[in-house]
Amino acid sequence: MTTLPQEVEIHEEGPREGFQIEPRTHPVGERAALVEALADAGLRQIPVASFVSRRRVPQMADAAELFAAVRKRAGTRYTALWLNETGFERARATPQVDLAGTLYFYASDAFSRQNNGQGAAEFAESQRLWLRRYREAGLAIEAAYVMTAFGCNLEGEIGEDRLAGVLGFVGGLLRDEGGALPRLYLADTVGWANPLSVRRRVDLVRRLLPGVRVGLHLHDTRGIGMANALAALEHGVDLFDASIAGLGGCPFCGHAHGSASGNICTEDLAFLCAELGIETGLDLEQLVAAARLAERIIGRRLDGKLMHAGTLRALRRRAG
Amino acid sequence: MTTLPQEVEIHEEGPREGFQIEPRTHPVGERAALVEALADAGLRQIPVASFVSRRRVPQMADAAELFAAVRKRAGTRYTALWLNETGFERARATPQVDLAGTLYFYASDAFSRQNNGQGAAEFAESQRLWLRRYREAGLAIEAAYVMTAFGCNLEGEIGEDRLAGVLGFVGGLLRDEGGALPRLYLADTVGWANPLSVRRRVDLVRRLLPGVRVGLHLHDTRGIGMANALAALEHGVDLFDASIAGLGGCPFCGHAHGSASGNICTEDLAFLCAELGIETGLDLEQLVAAARLAERIIGRRLDGKLMHAGTLRALRRRAG
Repeated sequence: MTTLPQEVEIHEEGPREGFQIEPRTHPVGERAALVEALADAGLRQIPVASFVSRRRVPQMADAAELFAAVRKRAGTRYTALWLNETGFERARATPQVDLAGTLYFYASDAFSRQNNGQGAAEFAESQRLWLRRYREAGLAIEAAYVMTAFGCNLEGEIGEDRLAGVLGFVGGLLRDEGGALPRLYLADTVGWANPLSVRRRVDLVRRLLPGVRVGLHLHDTRGIGMANALAALEHGVDLFDASIAGLGGCPFCGHAHGSASGNICTEDLAFLCAELGIETGLDLEQLVAAARLAERIIGRRLDGKLMHAGTLRALRRRAG
Repeated sequence: MTTLPQEVEIHEEGPREGFQIEPRTHPVGERAALVEALADAGLRQIPVASFVSRRRVPQMADAAELFAAVRKRAGTRYTALWLNETGFERARATPQVDLAGTLYFYASDAFSRQNNGQGAAEFAESQRLWLRRYREAGLAIEAAYVMTAFGCNLEGEIGEDRLAGVLGFVGGLLRDEGGALPRLYLADTVGWANPLSVRRRVDLVRRLLPGVRVGLHLHDTRGIGMANALAALEHGVDLFDASIAGLGGCPFCGHAHGSASGNICTEDLAFLCAELGIETGLDLEQLVAAARLAERIIGRRLDGKLMHAGTLRALRRRAG
């Protein structure tokens, strides 16, 4: 009935997204401590900061200092986000950044226009230039994201034909430019995915981009993020983004009704995997400790559940 | 691959549990308004209050007044909880209560001892007396609950053999006493269930108590409640308890680390069902309105997600 993977890779999203949306800038020391706690818990890819406009995103103005402050752990990659050439140059000038070539695509035209000032097709063409830019800089393309791959608050449901069109473009781009793509993520950017659409769209990627590993970037916007994750796991997906303590939600600025949840929660997803007998390489107790550290730093109750209830390990041991 | 039910019945748990754990007593008017909003949203079974010790649970001391204050809606049942003969008599003396005969069993001996001052076997025997008492009072047995059916913080994992023992006792009780049991709920009282154990234990009930409809009472203690619900839905389970806005968690008194989540969230579960094409008879917009009312009454951010992000209906309409 199910085809659970034996191992699942979870990439952390919390530190960058979490602090980027906070109204105040948190000290470098606090953020470095969180990044270090995440690496200690076993996370092998952690986005530390964004190299973006210091004026528009003052929370990330000290990105280079933060990278310099983090005690790095062997085997862990400390990645960064940038949106333009200036940001890319700043990231390249920061020796502690583990540069990764990532391409972005949008299934929703209106969402792309709102975020980038360009329609989805035009923005997709810009990724061809980034692909060449990365090659020129000696960077391999590691992953592509399809944002709003399930639906969008501006356009509503995104049909599978629209997603197929984006995947077709990605396939063509790889053929044209001769590159390989190790991973493609379907991103449920604003909470439209459900277990049925997750399975169908994962199948679509497998059909249209055979050989590309499918990842999911799920948000828990409407409370079914973990059900979507289970549907994906049981469909053989072994690559997920998640966010410690559920960091990245937006209690102030957000959504239709003043707030919305962010990525599915790293430690809750790791707990689900552990209970299903799936190896993640993560230490649940250390993840919970990192989530509690995040909560202390942010200074309000965060959405994660395991971090508040505690793991089952000690309870099992006591009973055993 | 899946055997989703066409219709699912969701019973509300929020008003009673939610207000019972709050440090202060909320006015009858506020609680009546919430119960009315839940009935308006389509919920057909709502526990309004407990008839329990006024000294130990002062939040429920006004149970009879609350029942009298609720504007009842035809087709909805307004139920109550009691733990002893005095409570049962108070409930019977309150004309607005829809009396329901419910039996309780414990898979964990230590948990039963902690809650009832009796071991699981002794407590189970007491349910024989309740069964007879209900018959004498002209009440049909509507449901039985197996508490801590998956695990327990005192005893750890509860083996399937232990659960089988409880189910065997229930079957014997029904044979001895000649009664029928329409529904049996597996209750994950403290958050030990996972998708694999949910499926296996539902199968166990079906095997040992054929003809009894299986329900699930799931908590979201460790963040995988909705994944457990999906596993159950895809295993054909069509009966769930849930709690509006996730009411019933305990941010003050609770668990290992000072707080824990309660039942899975009614409106998030209803949203999952709706997205899977399952009929629940519930109106998502009205559920969200009820959840926001609960949040205003309680006076702090509650765990529900859909209530904060909003449903997809208006967004689909705008896009359509």
